Amino acid sequence: MRIQNSRIFVETTSGTDILDLTAPVRAELKKAAVDTGSVILFIPGSTAALTTIEFESGAVSDLKAAIERMSPEDMYYAHNERWHDGNGYAHVRAAIFGPSLQIPILAGEMSLGTWQQIVLLDFDNRPRKRCIMVQVVGESPS
Amino acid sequence: MRIQNSRIFVETTSGTDILDLTAPVRAELKKAAVDTGSVILFIPGSTAALTTIEFESGAVSDLKAAIERMSPEDMYYAHNERWHDGNGYAHVRAAIFGPSLQIPILAGEMSLGTWQQIVLLDFDNRPRKRCIMVQVVGESPS
Amino acid sequence: MRIQNSRIFVETTSGTDILDLTAPVRAELKKAAVDTGSVILFIPGSTAALTTIEFESGAVSDLKAAIERMSPEDMYYAHNERWHDGNGYAHVRAAIFGPSLQIPILAGEMSLGTWQQIVLLDFDNRPRKRCIMVQVVGESPS
Repeated sequence: MRIQNSRIFVETTSGTDILDLTAPVRAELKKAAVDTGSVILFIPGSTAALTTIEFESGAVSDLKAAIERMSPEDMYYAHNERWHDGNGYAHVRAAIFGPSLQIPILAGEMSLGTWQQIVLLDFDNRPRKRCIMVQVVGESPS
Repeated sequence: MRIQNSRIFVETTSGTDILDLTAPVRAELKKAAVDTGSVILFIPGSTAALTTIEFESGAVSDLKAAIERMSPEDMYYAHNERWHDGNGYAHVRAAIFGPSLQIPILAGEMSLGTWQQIVLLDFDNRPRKRCIMVQVVGESPS
Repeated sequence: MRIQNSRIFVETTSGTDILDLTAPVRAELKKAAVDTGSVILFIPGSTAALTTIEFESGAVSDLKAAIERMSPEDMYYAHNERWHDGNGYAHVRAAIFGPSLQIPILAGEMSLGTWQQIVLLDFDNRPRKRCIMVQVVGESPS
């Protein structure tokens, strides 16, 4: 059983950004050549999160609308008093969604559903360079 | 250290369905005979999720009510314009809850609380046959 | 590859309590002396959860406010009819946030962001002694 670490780098915009990471994660999996095991995905940072969704523009905008209902951008956040960077809402959103995701690998493939994509949710109010940690744990074909 | 994969199959109804998976997960654990390690649970699909709750009818209906507040079934969803299957709300709910869960195993048992059950949340608006991936990673008693 | 289990014990108060677990988790990591791998964190119990946030008093109070909007303490919960302990809201909140978190370890350190702390969310309406499971999986430096 081996542990292989890699990173995916993406650039985001200043709005709530939802980016499809499925293809880059698959590329890392291919390099890792693990037959059975799992992949741990983790986003360092307190204004972004990971989840899965059908990456279709309608579903993505519906999710953004739900996020805005849960933690509206345009209301009072105590956090904004501290740093005056106006991203209090982003911290709350990130904490709700959480930073980690783990997906089993069987026969060399993640066990995602047909319409299920891995997404980064970047809530910050300025463009960011994000680094997603990809840890593949498992056994290679013998 | 070994990796053992199995699957749990369940059938769901057309409403938001919350099903207790604790007993079938325990049954898989028993077969895997792992003393120390963890179990990764993952639901393939973009209209279902996994979490834990006290599986008591009141708590389950309270959770359904909270889900309905976060992402009401009866409002506009852009996703519905795409496929016209009317399950836009289900995609949003699944993305909020997330598809994966990981539970440590100690002395052959999951470290769940006394009143804490593993549940599948199926948000789709039609009956589904769901397959939950169960991956047990760990060491067997020597 | 080794699996090392430990526990962190904390005491919480009767309100929604958000406690920084980063330092105690780091202490367990140091003892485990794992160079590359991951740490699984899990909270047994159905009225508490784990996530990450910038542990700053403003962000913490903003998160509490968002939680109160999602699942207000002072409304009807069917669960309260069952046990009459008045913590129905706590069960709903815990199910939304989820009990598990997994963080990669690289070069002996968790891959957390600079401002990202691990937190316990205790939603119960009475003081609790909580036990957080810490499972470190990985390879030690050779």
